Amino acid sequence: MAGQVTIGIDMGGTKVLGLAVDDEGVVLSEVRVATPGRRSAGENEPDGEGSELVIEALASVTEQLRDSIDAEVTSVGVGAPGLVDNTGVLRFAPNLPRGTGLDVVGRLSTRLGGMRTVVDNDATCATVAEWAFGAGTGVTDAVMVTLGTGIGGGIIAGGHVVRGASGFAGEIGHMVVDPTGPVCPCGKRGCWERFASGSGLGRLARDAAHAGRLDEVVGLAGGDAESVRGEHVTMAAKAGDAGALAVLGELGWWLALGLSNLALVLDPAVMVYGGGLVETVTLVLDKVQAAFDGLLEGHAYRPQVKIVPALLGERAGAIGAALVARAGDRYRVDAA
Amino acid sequence: MAGQVTIGIDMGGTKVLGLAVDDEGVVLSEVRVATPGRRSAGENEPDGEGSELVIEALASVTEQLRDSIDAEVTSVGVGAPGLVDNTGVLRFAPNLPRGTGLDVVGRLSTRLGGMRTVVDNDATCATVAEWAFGAGTGVTDAVMVTLGTGIGGGIIAGGHVVRGASGFAGEIGHMVVDPTGPVCPCGKRGCWERFASGSGLGRLARDAAHAGRLDEVVGLAGGDAESVRGEHVTMAAKAGDAGALAVLGELGWWLALGLSNLALVLDPAVMVYGGGLVETVTLVLDKVQAAFDGLLEGHAYRPQVKIVPALLGERAGAIGAALVARAGDRYRVDAA
Repeated sequence: MAGQVTIGIDMGGTKVLGLAVDDEGVVLSEVRVATPGRRSAGENEPDGEGSELVIEALASVTEQLRDSIDAEVTSVGVGAPGLVDNTGVLRFAPNLPRGTGLDVVGRLSTRLGGMRTVVDNDATCATVAEWAFGAGTGVTDAVMVTLGTGIGGGIIAGGHVVRGASGFAGEIGHMVVDPTGPVCPCGKRGCWERFASGSGLGRLARDAAHAGRLDEVVGLAGGDAESVRGEHVTMAAKAGDAGALAVLGELGWWLALGLSNLALVLDPAVMVYGGGLVETVTLVLDKVQAAFDGLLEGHAYRPQVKIVPALLGERAGAIGAALVARAGDRYRVDAA
Repeated sequence: MAGQVTIGIDMGGTKVLGLAVDDEGVVLSEVRVATPGRRSAGENEPDGEGSELVIEALASVTEQLRDSIDAEVTSVGVGAPGLVDNTGVLRFAPNLPRGTGLDVVGRLSTRLGGMRTVVDNDATCATVAEWAFGAGTGVTDAVMVTLGTGIGGGIIAGGHVVRGASGFAGEIGHMVVDPTGPVCPCGKRGCWERFASGSGLGRLARDAAHAGRLDEVVGLAGGDAESVRGEHVTMAAKAGDAGALAVLGELGWWLALGLSNLALVLDPAVMVYGGGLVETVTLVLDKVQAAFDGLLEGHAYRPQVKIVPALLGERAGAIGAALVARAGDRYRVDAA
């Protein structure tokens, strides 16, 4: 164990994962609990009774971690899904029960007797972790995309974490990449995460299944094209099924498209992909890199921007939250 | 005249505009010359005879400015169109004769007897100027888009100019916003600048003219739909022509689409538009802002991101180049 110990918590839609982390990113202790359930009648207000369960879960995880290690813990960082503002309020969190409007910093620090509490976007936290100890070390400019049900993102530019005027930078899943594309739950058409996420993969796969291009995969899904999920495609692709690999190629092309748009804006040295789709994307990484290179304007005149898988797995968000807490303010985290 | 005087030069595809600028952004002197012409046989190599004309033009403008003012000038900044790398080499400049591969810093500083010379992307220079003295003052996070024949961009994030790993950040015109859209000279389909630039406006207008929706404008263009240019649309829109205003509405929607994508990535407090289309876009600014607000995910939960016209006009690039030279390195320019 080296130096200061901080607690990092990744608050997801289904689970809360907490870690005690030392200065070198070593995980000393881990606690996980289920995220308190969906809203029911009378629990709709973020400042009402219902949201107390969320704060209580975060406090309980913090206390369990604090009690599990033999070192003083002075701060806790929380990575939360959605728009986290500069004051630590979760302004908009469509995927977190009771999340929207929740003053996480204010209420959690009060509940913890004044412990220093920092809250940041979950994908930004994961990015800080990968930058410090994972796939993005040693560079001043990096972009991370987290590919799950949707797409989250984090940005390092010129050696600084980019958070934006309000703290909302990196909401890259809703960039429109096809204005006539499929409708997104957000109300727009053709958001990037309609194509290059887990749900995007499912949709691409079902389209291919209905078109008769995925018979092997439909078999894995029990014979019904409408039951095809991304997992079935990944399974079949690993076994070498051509139809499944073709669908992953489509996924990879859309991924490359959004990554090349981001690279044009930010010119990172490396782009890290993480989240539940890591293994799936890695199956077609050569295709993703080739499509990306072809889409990047002036690519023949630039150093290649490397697209690489994340290294810290599902712990990245919590490790990063701990690092953000350690740094003490939301606006500057030095690279390791 | 206040403090240190530096020279800033905006090197465009048709003209070279040089300014002597003091610490407060006041222009003390101005010189402009035509950009040395298109390549001819034997002048294709950036390090060959032909590119000498470009360096000579920059040196001559610098010397004229230096001789025109009664103050010591110790540095010159150049804003160049294209990919300018960290060492001041113009790596890719499709719109500048003899530009690609030109070592501007090395050759110009040698030619000027060792004067400190800094080169940066032209849109980044304009952004620095608008941030310091124009439409983007007082914020830590801003994005500027320059709307000319194509679209350039510059980014301020967390109080720093974003330049990227190689210096190529802000190449936003080639973000793909419609993969089945019109072919771009870069080889891709549906780049943002196919829609929201001067050439994009011309294309939208000719499509509308051929469809019979722009009879007034076709009249202004001499009766031939294929002769319609953006200027004709702007002229008719100012006179209240409904067809012209509808085409500007289309332009504005595409502008809003790309701006909202950038705002999702960067969360700026303000987005500044500049370049030759400023006046045209301002005619439909209400529509642009409304479309942008609607496209920005979670907009009801955010402070409004203001879209505002640039204030420094065609001098922005040269003023910004002077500021970048004053700051002494390419990686940090403090806001005024």
